[in-house]
Amino acid sequence: MYSHSSSIYTPIQPLPFNRISQIVASSFQVIMVLEPATATQAAAPAMPQLKDELDIVIPTIRNLDFLEMWRPFFQPYHLIIVQDGDPSKTIKVPPGFDYELYNRNDINKILGPKASCISFKDSACRCFGYMVSKKKYIFTIDDDCFVAKDPSGKAVNALEQHIKNLLCPSTPFFFNTLYDPFRDGADFVRGYPFSLREGVPTAVSHGLWLNIPDYDAPTQLVKPLERNTRFVDAVLTIPKGTLFPMCGMNLAFDRDLIGPAMYFGLMGDGQPIGRYDDMWAGWCVKVICDHLGLGVKTGLPYIYHSKASNPFVNLRKEYKGIFWQEEIIPFFQQVVLPKDCTTVQKCYIELAKQVKEKLSKVDPYFDKLGDAMVTWIKAWDELNPPVLNGKAA
Amino acid sequence: MYSHSSSIYTPIQPLPFNRISQIVASSFQVIMVLEPATATQAAAPAMPQLKDELDIVIPTIRNLDFLEMWRPFFQPYHLIIVQDGDPSKTIKVPPGFDYELYNRNDINKILGPKASCISFKDSACRCFGYMVSKKKYIFTIDDDCFVAKDPSGKAVNALEQHIKNLLCPSTPFFFNTLYDPFRDGADFVRGYPFSLREGVPTAVSHGLWLNIPDYDAPTQLVKPLERNTRFVDAVLTIPKGTLFPMCGMNLAFDRDLIGPAMYFGLMGDGQPIGRYDDMWAGWCVKVICDHLGLGVKTGLPYIYHSKASNPFVNLRKEYKGIFWQEEIIPFFQQVVLPKDCTTVQKCYIELAKQVKEKLSKVDPYFDKLGDAMVTWIKAWDELNPPVLNGKAA
Repeated sequence: MYSHSSSIYTPIQPLPFNRISQIVASSFQVIMVLEPATATQAAAPAMPQLKDELDIVIPTIRNLDFLEMWRPFFQPYHLIIVQDGDPSKTIKVPPGFDYELYNRNDINKILGPKASCISFKDSACRCFGYMVSKKKYIFTIDDDCFVAKDPSGKAVNALEQHIKNLLCPSTPFFFNTLYDPFRDGADFVRGYPFSLREGVPTAVSHGLWLNIPDYDAPTQLVKPLERNTRFVDAVLTIPKGTLFPMCGMNLAFDRDLIGPAMYFGLMGDGQPIGRYDDMWAGWCVKVICDHLGLGVKTGLPYIYHSKASNPFVNLRKEYKGIFWQEEIIPFFQQVVLPKDCTTVQKCYIELAKQVKEKLSKVDPYFDKLGDAMVTWIKAWDELNPPVLNGKAA
Repeated sequence: MYSHSSSIYTPIQPLPFNRISQIVASSFQVIMVLEPATATQAAAPAMPQLKDELDIVIPTIRNLDFLEMWRPFFQPYHLIIVQDGDPSKTIKVPPGFDYELYNRNDINKILGPKASCISFKDSACRCFGYMVSKKKYIFTIDDDCFVAKDPSGKAVNALEQHIKNLLCPSTPFFFNTLYDPFRDGADFVRGYPFSLREGVPTAVSHGLWLNIPDYDAPTQLVKPLERNTRFVDAVLTIPKGTLFPMCGMNLAFDRDLIGPAMYFGLMGDGQPIGRYDDMWAGWCVKVICDHLGLGVKTGLPYIYHSKASNPFVNLRKEYKGIFWQEEIIPFFQQVVLPKDCTTVQKCYIELAKQVKEKLSKVDPYFDKLGDAMVTWIKAWDELNPPVLNGKAA
């Protein structure tokens, strides 16, 4: 494990930001949303919120030049970089960032046999970062996500919006037609029960993507040129009892409230499936949030998603998932967690049991996944021992 | 009943549009969204959709000068005006509109004793218009709702957007994070089950309001200056199992699919409550749509709501509702309709029975309301006899 703070880290190579900027600029057709660092600098808040309570988790296989344009927003925070693929490769991080980096060897060393629950050659590996973090909040972002612009041309500080979303309550029990009632200029509308206006704690903030939308391989194949240019100025709570497709590209959550359920499953190398890591986590998380009375928000902030992944490669990774989701989703829609599941861990272990019982008939993979879910919780608890009266138990 | 078509109607007085425009302009502080008729003219579509299949229902107690600014959008359609209050008063309608107008005397004459189910001195009376219409679609709007502008400054043709919403499917069973997947430039995201992508027929399109938000009396009192300036460019399906506060100010629906459930209850004159007419309808409609597998959308289009009603008057009308909704909403959240309720009418009669059984303990009013719900269905069926093999049964 490499651990660097801005004070001790010596940059190996000057940042190749101009080059990236050129590559990216050539793909701008509909809206210009890539924001040069100078403009983001102006948009950065003077006092970064939750500076010591939030880690940014980034899974990657390449140099992290994309951080350059996020610098004004991310630099005050600590980064956890999870290096996927060849551990002998060196990942370059622009100077001035405070980070720790884990490659596969680090993961194996830290988790021992339990490292089997962490995927390899799939961005699912990012959840290792959630586990080793010691902070209350996590923001995770892909390395092909750039700074978006809002319709006024202002750089979107995605992290700041996620923090806003997480720090104000959710309203899962009744729909508010003016969306998030806690935003400036909004409130609960006529007919909204007053007893529900306190809301519930927000566990998850799911952000969206301008430019390349998060489509599956068949949709990518059918609509190769479709770009998302619609900036929807809304944050909303996904109602209780409703599942959603959670994308891991631009996502924040409260580790204390929901961390142990943010397992991204067994994907990629040696597995029959890929690109369902975040979906799996989303289904589990939503069912557990609903059970525990926690909120899940979606909408703002947008990031600018620069690069569509290869639809042919994606199809090979996804095609089993396309069949399986037709049975997985009804399973999650019907899951009932017993009342004595009062912690995320208990809920998750119960869910693992039901996955093995009910989904193994779909494919033996789910038996293995159920086991991995249990291993994940064991590993989580090992790295995050329960705190009793302020002391580790 | 006065019936006028544009060819036979002689205007009594020139339209006082300039005067309205001045009054309204003085309240414009944040965004200018009132659109003069010339600009709306340019925005009107050449071929109005559903021209012979949609009625516009307007409840009113005053001259309908507000129609002047809607002329380019509404003039091709037939209006049903429900005159509330003193039937001897003459309601002036700008020339050139094709309309029929019903006052209380007309309602009494047409419905006889069943007229008891139609409210008086409350905008709930509008539902009489739904009943006498012979069209498949209804759009209903309040007379203090003006044409909004979108962020580009273009006049919003609210009716056109409602028609779009109604003519494309809804997706109540799983949440799509890019909102309405049927809009241009959008689709279903990765992880959305393919078996659910056909969607279900849309029964209701609920539009929103810029400027004066639809707040209850307590919120109006606390935030007298709050204006809604946020144009959220989204349409979304309210998920199955989730209730919402349906506002009747800017609402469209498919009469064939859900008409008999669009009863606005007993409100106003002689009743212990007001301003819950649309809320009541919304709860009933949503529960029945969920049972029958129909969709309810909310979001676009916006209208510009010009005039806040008096919060003190509203408080007097609403205050029982503020208590009652704490029990009504859990009731609707738990309602189960039996499988043999296969039509809206059957669902509604069953709902009336359950209202009497479960809500009468809240207040004897609900016993009366349950009876009125049954009367409404009888009156609906009388005016809308079931069609069998193309002939009235």
